[in-house]
Amino acid sequence: MKITSGSVSESAASVYANRREKLRQSLGNLDALLVSEPANRFYLSGFELHDGQPGETSGFIIITRSGEDWLATDSRYAEAAARLWARDRIFIYSSDMAGSLCALLQRCATLIGYEARAISAAFARKLTNHINLRFLPAPHLVERLREIKEPLEITALKASFRLNHEMLDWFETRLNAGKLANLSEQELAWEIEKYFREQGAQELAFATIAATGKNGALPHAAPGADRLLPEMPLLIDVGCRVDDYCSDQTRVFWHGEHPAVNYTTALKLTREAQEAALAIMRPGARCADVYQAAKEVFAAAHVDQYFTHGLGHGVGLQTHEAPSLSPTSNQVLAEGMVVTVEPGLYYPEWGGIRWEYTVLVEKDGVQIL
Amino acid sequence: MKITSGSVSESAASVYANRREKLRQSLGNLDALLVSEPANRFYLSGFELHDGQPGETSGFIIITRSGEDWLATDSRYAEAAARLWARDRIFIYSSDMAGSLCALLQRCATLIGYEARAISAAFARKLTNHINLRFLPAPHLVERLREIKEPLEITALKASFRLNHEMLDWFETRLNAGKLANLSEQELAWEIEKYFREQGAQELAFATIAATGKNGALPHAAPGADRLLPEMPLLIDVGCRVDDYCSDQTRVFWHGEHPAVNYTTALKLTREAQEAALAIMRPGARCADVYQAAKEVFAAAHVDQYFTHGLGHGVGLQTHEAPSLSPTSNQVLAEGMVVTVEPGLYYPEWGGIRWEYTVLVEKDGVQIL
Repeated sequence: MKITSGSVSESAASVYANRREKLRQSLGNLDALLVSEPANRFYLSGFELHDGQPGETSGFIIITRSGEDWLATDSRYAEAAARLWARDRIFIYSSDMAGSLCALLQRCATLIGYEARAISAAFARKLTNHINLRFLPAPHLVERLREIKEPLEITALKASFRLNHEMLDWFETRLNAGKLANLSEQELAWEIEKYFREQGAQELAFATIAATGKNGALPHAAPGADRLLPEMPLLIDVGCRVDDYCSDQTRVFWHGEHPAVNYTTALKLTREAQEAALAIMRPGARCADVYQAAKEVFAAAHVDQYFTHGLGHGVGLQTHEAPSLSPTSNQVLAEGMVVTVEPGLYYPEWGGIRWEYTVLVEKDGVQIL
Repeated sequence: MKITSGSVSESAASVYANRREKLRQSLGNLDALLVSEPANRFYLSGFELHDGQPGETSGFIIITRSGEDWLATDSRYAEAAARLWARDRIFIYSSDMAGSLCALLQRCATLIGYEARAISAAFARKLTNHINLRFLPAPHLVERLREIKEPLEITALKASFRLNHEMLDWFETRLNAGKLANLSEQELAWEIEKYFREQGAQELAFATIAATGKNGALPHAAPGADRLLPEMPLLIDVGCRVDDYCSDQTRVFWHGEHPAVNYTTALKLTREAQEAALAIMRPGARCADVYQAAKEVFAAAHVDQYFTHGLGHGVGLQTHEAPSLSPTSNQVLAEGMVVTVEPGLYYPEWGGIRWEYTVLVEKDGVQIL
């Protein structure tokens, strides 16, 4: 069964309903939770995985203690909402979105949790000015559910990673056959995107990174006009969305016959750091310890100052989600989590190395997706 | 001269510097403005038009009354920042972004404006808890500048609309030649995207809408598996980004030889509503009056209840920006504004009509882009 947006089958509807029931158990003393984060909204309803435009919400799911949940949206989405939610529980708000929502909330709640990372400061001010309602930040309630992937989600993730691996194989074959020589980063990114889309991806999971030479030292390089010339490194960080779920992979290649020593040395260390992290990953392992396992490999080689970001992040409906494999994380791995493991070393003088696997945490260790 | 991300030429640098000086004049009693909205940040610096991931900022521009402006970002973007901003005014914040930024702000400001629509409630709470700093929402300061397009921006917008028109011509020719028959909405959207990208667009300006039959009644329909069958309407809403600027166009077509009477009637009314709005658009016209001009055409035909959204919006670095042609707007048109004029009528039983032009407001009226 594929759970997707658009009209919703009965079995998909029960998946969403089950998730809402689970969430209801975690409301504590809240009368309701106002869900605004797009992936959370979709996770609970199948309604609109993305907001329409930056800074413009497509709507909210309101989970109430009483069990009378609401889908609130504006008139543009009324018909889309009616395709997957009971019409008598769809609330169409006016252009005064905050005032309108508060009028609805007054009918079902006094103490209301909200997702403070997913509403703007301006909107929060309007909500919290309301005289008869109390609003409290209630972070991570849906995110905590989403951390542990359900079997259906794992199936979708595997499909997404399968396509990603197929693309990587195709890409490497073409690279080795010389067919990508002299393409610009933008052209390389477009080749990758076309492959994903024409082989069944709904969209990219994130903007493709294709960084030639020195540009590899920019961990979030936007592809530009620089070309893939002989004897230089190439870093690609690529993701697609299949059955609504993201995949995320990074690889580096040497384009030419004579890889530079600084490249091969940094690559070897990066793979060793990755191995060290993978070796200790299992249910119960602390995320911060997994980060340290990689970091220590770099420290032993006196290159840890070139490892400038976290080791990994959860992947699911979003490319970046909980948990985070960072030195400051206080989370612990659990069965069913799906996380990236992506150490890297960055040298502005010549480029960067990053090698990324994504793994499913299983009973006794991890499975690389 | 193209102003673009990546390394920045001297002349582009002076464009950004001039904008920052203009903004400085509007700071009022603020010591500094914390700019977090991605398009605003880019408008003032050329740094990162997009945030990396939903909910993750790529950085901030801090405009100070003293003239010592800062670019604040995290370590992943340090090298990208150094390519277009003086290194001694780049601030790399720690994982405690709010605390870290406040430490920087303490060095240059006491009263700080922030963009309340473009930071999260959670982040605002952290900032405003700081004991030695006062934060005030300072809305629209950069947006007000961006409303009036500079000559260079108009050149970029025209290039973006030129490509959009070329795509529409190509699309209509293929449609009339029967080459799009039986394609799914997703396939139609992909045909459009491929054209844009292969003819020089950096990216889509927004997710393409291709809505067959009844789906046209969903003003923000996501393309699905429904196919373009004989004798049905097709609505496409399409935008590309060229030289960093967006274009936005909507058209409807009848796929077949025998357009239904409800389709032709609604289309005729929609075009008349558009004409009525265009006829009164000039510097000094009230945005709400422009909306009303279109609305009244629909009201006279007793169909205004099927016109369910605003009449238009500004277009520039973002697809949706100020000003808004809505009934509640208190803005007035001015020379150099670029806005869409897109009346529509939506009938869940059979589909929808929308016809969109984008116009540049000139001294004596408007020029359709």
